[in-house]
Amino acid sequence: MQQVLSYLDANKDRFLAELKDFLAIPSVSSQSTHNADIRRCAEWVANQMSTIGLQTVQIMETPGHPVVYADWLGAPGKPTILLYGHYDVQPVDPVNLWTSPPFEATIRGENLYARGSADDKGQVYIHFKAIEAWMKNNSSLPVNLKVIIEGEEEVGSANLDSFVKEHKELLKADMVLISDSSMFAKGVPSLCYGLRGLAYMEVEVTGPNTDLHSGSFGGSLHNPIQALSEIIASLHDKNGKITIPGFYDDVRPLSKTERAAFKKLPWNDRKYAKQWGLKNLYGEKGFTTLERLWARPTLECNGIWGGYTGEGAKTVLPAKAFAKISMRIVPDQTSAKVAKLFERHLKKIAPKTIDIRVRALHGGEPAITPIESPGVRAAVAALQKGFGKKPLYQREGGSIPIVVQFKKLLGLDTVLLGFGLPDENAHAPNEFINLDNFFGGMRTAAHFYNELPSYWKK
Amino acid sequence: MQQVLSYLDANKDRFLAELKDFLAIPSVSSQSTHNADIRRCAEWVANQMSTIGLQTVQIMETPGHPVVYADWLGAPGKPTILLYGHYDVQPVDPVNLWTSPPFEATIRGENLYARGSADDKGQVYIHFKAIEAWMKNNSSLPVNLKVIIEGEEEVGSANLDSFVKEHKELLKADMVLISDSSMFAKGVPSLCYGLRGLAYMEVEVTGPNTDLHSGSFGGSLHNPIQALSEIIASLHDKNGKITIPGFYDDVRPLSKTERAAFKKLPWNDRKYAKQWGLKNLYGEKGFTTLERLWARPTLECNGIWGGYTGEGAKTVLPAKAFAKISMRIVPDQTSAKVAKLFERHLKKIAPKTIDIRVRALHGGEPAITPIESPGVRAAVAALQKGFGKKPLYQREGGSIPIVVQFKKLLGLDTVLLGFGLPDENAHAPNEFINLDNFFGGMRTAAHFYNELPSYWKK
Repeated sequence: MQQVLSYLDANKDRFLAELKDFLAIPSVSSQSTHNADIRRCAEWVANQMSTIGLQTVQIMETPGHPVVYADWLGAPGKPTILLYGHYDVQPVDPVNLWTSPPFEATIRGENLYARGSADDKGQVYIHFKAIEAWMKNNSSLPVNLKVIIEGEEEVGSANLDSFVKEHKELLKADMVLISDSSMFAKGVPSLCYGLRGLAYMEVEVTGPNTDLHSGSFGGSLHNPIQALSEIIASLHDKNGKITIPGFYDDVRPLSKTERAAFKKLPWNDRKYAKQWGLKNLYGEKGFTTLERLWARPTLECNGIWGGYTGEGAKTVLPAKAFAKISMRIVPDQTSAKVAKLFERHLKKIAPKTIDIRVRALHGGEPAITPIESPGVRAAVAALQKGFGKKPLYQREGGSIPIVVQFKKLLGLDTVLLGFGLPDENAHAPNEFINLDNFFGGMRTAAHFYNELPSYWKK
Repeated sequence: MQQVLSYLDANKDRFLAELKDFLAIPSVSSQSTHNADIRRCAEWVANQMSTIGLQTVQIMETPGHPVVYADWLGAPGKPTILLYGHYDVQPVDPVNLWTSPPFEATIRGENLYARGSADDKGQVYIHFKAIEAWMKNNSSLPVNLKVIIEGEEEVGSANLDSFVKEHKELLKADMVLISDSSMFAKGVPSLCYGLRGLAYMEVEVTGPNTDLHSGSFGGSLHNPIQALSEIIASLHDKNGKITIPGFYDDVRPLSKTERAAFKKLPWNDRKYAKQWGLKNLYGEKGFTTLERLWARPTLECNGIWGGYTGEGAKTVLPAKAFAKISMRIVPDQTSAKVAKLFERHLKKIAPKTIDIRVRALHGGEPAITPIESPGVRAAVAALQKGFGKKPLYQREGGSIPIVVQFKKLLGLDTVLLGFGLPDENAHAPNEFINLDNFFGGMRTAAHFYNELPSYWKK
């Protein structure tokens, strides 16, 4: 183990240089213009897997972007980890808000900035180097490992579901390991045991059948932007509660233990507001900010557009207005039911002066992992050794739908070993990974492989 | 006069060919990429003015786009008309909604389709050909004529005000004549005696100081799209009335005579709704559709944008959301006061969870012209002869701010001799001018020059 740690320490510069190559590939999965980049990125991952000593490396086709698979199964009698990550990234617009180009990884201070640095290429790469360190120094791993790195996480992992179904035998394992989430704060290593799910919708409001002159026609018909605004405004009440009937029916109430655990975490609302340049926070009454973020469902507008949005003034009364609206859901809500409730409610409240179309773009389920499982206990031990500090427990507001699918399709619990930070700008300009977390993450991953077998026996 | 009419009839094909050249120049004044086209268009207008026999032709510079001036002053003792029009046009986006290219004039059925065909190049050209017909057949006009065709009407005529101030002597006249509006309906020649004004605003709502991940942060702060929607939704009450305090204070109430005159016009709400593909109309309670369109102020969203508006799903909680909102105003409201009321109200109602910026983009005043003035009476006579039908009186929902400026700066009343149609798509895809109106407009313009002197004496 000491050799492994020394190796990780000795090769830091090379690791950063290699990571920059990985981050330079603009593997944006939601934009078809980047299809060739996605392919190139899958090949980069496959090459890397071979280089670090994994076996059975293969780029496996799907109807969408490919999954890259590799394994190392030379530890009979030891548990088998299914390590999951993704090599695709979010779009980069508005690109003018990036301080350095999104696909030219740049170190400023103690962070490395690039699209995908934290979500999720950087965290995938952490495992690659932990594996490399074991293989170069011991020619073996302390566990069996199967690795799948997919290319469609940022567009809802549309094909991973059937991929897992088709390869149940190949993917057979004892637990799933994912590093695609954040620690609670810099210097506060923590283990995430719960995720929110997602129901992502698109709404299209149509007024007149063509754009009209707002002078000649304004006042006689319902402006679709106004109608859409009225609909959106009505979706929260004065207490910040979502007004969709039945929306909260399946929400698992927070236990006293959980609320107490959250209160142990270092948190300051004023500091949080200040960090994001806000005078005041906003949210559902009766809950703390951490409770709102992790254990309460939300409804957010991710985008809105309609009419003239260019330079200057155009006096148009537009034919259409659009919004992208997503709901984060918590156990025991399901994305399908929430999407249906949303659609039914919007169609019901839509005024008779406009037409409305509601479309579900994608969904993912919420998840909670037992704190007592051997995987979580091994992760707590590994974090303590990797960062020299006892980790705290937390939940996470984001979604990793595949966690639910692994449970459903393979019967496996997932351990979420996240090395990001909450302010890492994962889906925004200036995404970064903290370098302490990057190298601490490598040590933690190396320890985790080492710790797991002993916890597994107990 | 008969020769003039015969000439207009004999040269129809040539007139259409020439008009197509005029419409082929993409003189979009709001987009600086079209500055060279604007210049080319001004030169086209100047050449045309020389060709038809006008004198003193000159392209007169302004700090923005130039004004083209010409005159013919060979009728001493007769009234002098100041003819105003504009050679600039609206942007053409969304360009994919045009059936034929916006700058390739195309005849389909009884209409000619192109950007600027009705607003206002087509109507400017109508006068050019009426002038040509008089000059070619009589070597003179029955009136004195001064013509100014500007290039900034679609961006608020920012420099025309000072242009008129600087050239008060040059522009001295007895009345202003403008053809930049619509008839009431196809086959219903009408004379417009009132215009609405405009106050065009831009609103910027800022939430967090960067785009955030809607999973990791959703629920803890006020989404700027949601906040903007709430603000927009609150600007109308359940009766379709605008909620800005003081907004209606200066609105001149509709007289009984006016309401009765409007009721004489052929109108059918169901047909109107059907024309625009609407199941139901929307508007201020207590007023008919025509009253809402012409004599009541309105507030319309002309554009809205924020967050992710591309293909697919991006789980962003955006930093900013924007809207372009314009108010149409009626006598005796003023754009400056309404803009101030709007700004003050929005700043007051903006929640403390976001920041708001409100900016006035441009404004124009409403206007009413006396029905008893000699110019209006001559126009009624000319319309009757040009279209063979007694015209009706109407108002218009759009704005021609310069009408107010001509009154204020030159002391002149304006006659609005509009040859467009209400469904001409003036600021939208598939703008057109009806060919009957185009040629009937030429006859009417020729008659107007002939009729005016006799009414002027009375």
